[in-house]
Amino acid sequence: MKTLTEYLHFDTKNKREIINITDQVEEIVKKSGVQEGIALISAMHITASVFINDEESGIKADFLEWAEKLAPFNPAYQHHRTGETNGDAHMKSILFNHEVIVPITKGVIDFGPWQQIFYGEWDGQRKKRVIVKVIGA
Amino acid sequence: MKTLTEYLHFDTKNKREIINITDQVEEIVKKSGVQEGIALISAMHITASVFINDEESGIKADFLEWAEKLAPFNPAYQHHRTGETNGDAHMKSILFNHEVIVPITKGVIDFGPWQQIFYGEWDGQRKKRVIVKVIGA
Amino acid sequence: MKTLTEYLHFDTKNKREIINITDQVEEIVKKSGVQEGIALISAMHITASVFINDEESGIKADFLEWAEKLAPFNPAYQHHRTGETNGDAHMKSILFNHEVIVPITKGVIDFGPWQQIFYGEWDGQRKKRVIVKVIGA
Repeated sequence: MKTLTEYLHFDTKNKREIINITDQVEEIVKKSGVQEGIALISAMHITASVFINDEESGIKADFLEWAEKLAPFNPAYQHHRTGETNGDAHMKSILFNHEVIVPITKGVIDFGPWQQIFYGEWDGQRKKRVIVKVIGA
Repeated sequence: MKTLTEYLHFDTKNKREIINITDQVEEIVKKSGVQEGIALISAMHITASVFINDEESGIKADFLEWAEKLAPFNPAYQHHRTGETNGDAHMKSILFNHEVIVPITKGVIDFGPWQQIFYGEWDGQRKKRVIVKVIGA
Repeated sequence: MKTLTEYLHFDTKNKREIINITDQVEEIVKKSGVQEGIALISAMHITASVFINDEESGIKADFLEWAEKLAPFNPAYQHHRTGETNGDAHMKSILFNHEVIVPITKGVIDFGPWQQIFYGEWDGQRKKRVIVKVIGA
């Protein structure tokens, strides 16, 4: 069994951003030498997401609005008694999920025509990480 | 390490449908010969889902209504400036998630009493695929 | 390839509870002897979740409220024609997802500073199970 583990680093300019990380993951998959297997791409923070969707600016703007609609900022969250103000970011992390598993076939990510991997930052302007772990043969 | 990769094909009659694919996945798991491992079942499109729940017609109807409530069709989505009208289908794909990983123990899917695997089509009446990748020993 | 499969058992006092299972999973990872790989932690029921977030009592209370807001109890669900009353629990299972995959590096779960694994019970006061399957080298 072959494995490779790498970490992606983020420090976004905005509080909330959606960043395409497909090329970086594809690079790590190639470096691993795995021909048949999977890659786990997982946010290492509880206020961020990793998800698969479409590289299209309109839908990314729609996602930011939709996230705010379903998991709005709200001063009244009980989490804020700790001094934090990011309860909504925890919920957005749940809504968009914090990880994806992608299939690797013949040495590359086995995606459909429009699939791309995104990092969803919900509480940015600070250092964050994503783990990419490839396992296979 | 053993691996097997197969693809399921869909071309639904309706725009939105929930289709039980458990038997097809179980067949692929058996064919793989994997005794201990996992299977990744992942939609290859950004307007579809794969999820685990219950084979009961009422809850499947409830899911379609719930998806529409939380991720409604809306002409005003910015994604629609591209000429598309399926922004809601992208959101439903996020809400229900696009993939599941199932455990394989002693050569079969290791499920609880009611668990079944479903393909959720949110923008159908066109050709779509799901990848099933089995890895293990 | 090494694998280990164990099952966690639950029978909660309350209908809805969020339970930290990180230590139990870490124990199983160590027992497996896997140095590089992944662990699948998956609810074996369709009215429960497994997810990753923060061990903080405020956010856990906020999650219970948020789950009820987005996937409320409702006598009118079609699922209830079966005699069940737990349609909302099925939806909460979808919203929070039923499984996570965690990375294992150098023999331990490779988590960021605040990540913890939680079992989300949405229809408790009965016997439930979670499977933990470790695979790797």
